[in-house]
Amino acid sequence: MTGTLYGLGVGPGDPELLTLKALRILREVPAIAYPAPEKGDSMTRAIAAAHLPGGQAEIALRMPMIAGDAPADAHYDRYVSEIVAHLEAGRDVAVLCEGDPLFYGSFMYVLIRLEGGHPVEVVPGVSSLTACAAAAAMPLVSRNETLAVLPAPLPEEELEARLVSVHAAAIMKVGRHLPKVRRVLSRLGLEDGARYVERACLDGEKVLPLNEVDDGRAPYFSMILVRKGMAAAP
Amino acid sequence: MTGTLYGLGVGPGDPELLTLKALRILREVPAIAYPAPEKGDSMTRAIAAAHLPGGQAEIALRMPMIAGDAPADAHYDRYVSEIVAHLEAGRDVAVLCEGDPLFYGSFMYVLIRLEGGHPVEVVPGVSSLTACAAAAAMPLVSRNETLAVLPAPLPEEELEARLVSVHAAAIMKVGRHLPKVRRVLSRLGLEDGARYVERACLDGEKVLPLNEVDDGRAPYFSMILVRKGMAAAP
Repeated sequence: MTGTLYGLGVGPGDPELLTLKALRILREVPAIAYPAPEKGDSMTRAIAAAHLPGGQAEIALRMPMIAGDAPADAHYDRYVSEIVAHLEAGRDVAVLCEGDPLFYGSFMYVLIRLEGGHPVEVVPGVSSLTACAAAAAMPLVSRNETLAVLPAPLPEEELEARLVSVHAAAIMKVGRHLPKVRRVLSRLGLEDGARYVERACLDGEKVLPLNEVDDGRAPYFSMILVRKGMAAAP
Repeated sequence: MTGTLYGLGVGPGDPELLTLKALRILREVPAIAYPAPEKGDSMTRAIAAAHLPGGQAEIALRMPMIAGDAPADAHYDRYVSEIVAHLEAGRDVAVLCEGDPLFYGSFMYVLIRLEGGHPVEVVPGVSSLTACAAAAAMPLVSRNETLAVLPAPLPEEELEARLVSVHAAAIMKVGRHLPKVRRVLSRLGLEDGARYVERACLDGEKVLPLNEVDDGRAPYFSMILVRKGMAAAP
């Protein structure tokens, strides 16, 4: 009898943005796992902390900081072995995921390492995408509009090519790429209607027109929302 | 003293996918509003029904079926007047929204009709986008990949142009457009890896490889998820 692996979206940061389903599973499972930095506290665990019943086995998926985005294969291999040991002993394991498990999360690195035989259930969560739109009270898309979700680290030419024909866009992971993103939006005439959102649904949340944001101040977890024809909107 | 207008995401359909915050507000507000067909029951209200405390004022935003996507302006004007009357009497109103309020929802038609002076808070919800990915246990995007969200009613040439260079795509509102979407994906070599999802997070949920879906059977609320290089994946 194998345990079930849950990919558990815990939402964008506010512990009240967990779903009822995530809360139930969080309280029921004998083991949890969560991404964490090489040293120090896990932001993901912190979102769920107030809801934890205590007494659960915990696996901190600690990853060294690595240049570029390559996942740390050997580390994942080892952590997934720990997770599989729980599953094979019949214990369910919930992997906590900030936002949604399958939207720019690390859960897929766990998922692709499972070799079948273990039931998997993904519990979707509120993603940073809709959390930022909510913070800005800015419609993302409606009717037959298209939305492009674009990571800011993309090369400037690629960002521009992908932004040129969209109705709306969410530019993620802005950080040090802010000046580049601003240049592209300015060339396309999209800067005036753009909104900058930082720490959505967390203490210190900031929502500003992009025009009022200084270059150099954006943290990694910030987002720029763009809608064509929004320049005149509130 | 004015009331607050809440845009309340109630998630994709499973009442357990409400957030704790949506649940709290749902129980506290003296008035709720929700989209509904011209006649019959509201799917959105049904998602929240088990959580309603009873005794609240209810405004069903009943919309006539109209060819095309133009919102029914006169109807929205009238319903927003009703909502504003509550707000001006100091009563909070929660507008229930399937999925997320700002992701292809009708909440924006309420939002744009408020003439300021009333505080607005949007509570993000689990969107159909991440609900479908969860149902398929299929990663949407990771690292620096881009995601295109595309409504299937778009013209065939536009769909193809927008799909040609993406890493991943979610094609919404498939319905009668399934044969067209399939033709486009087939021409681009993306059909083999595509997943079809119907009624995600509801009774009767279906997840199938697109190759195994018959033309003509897709309901309006179905989605096709595409990832480049997924042909060999489970």
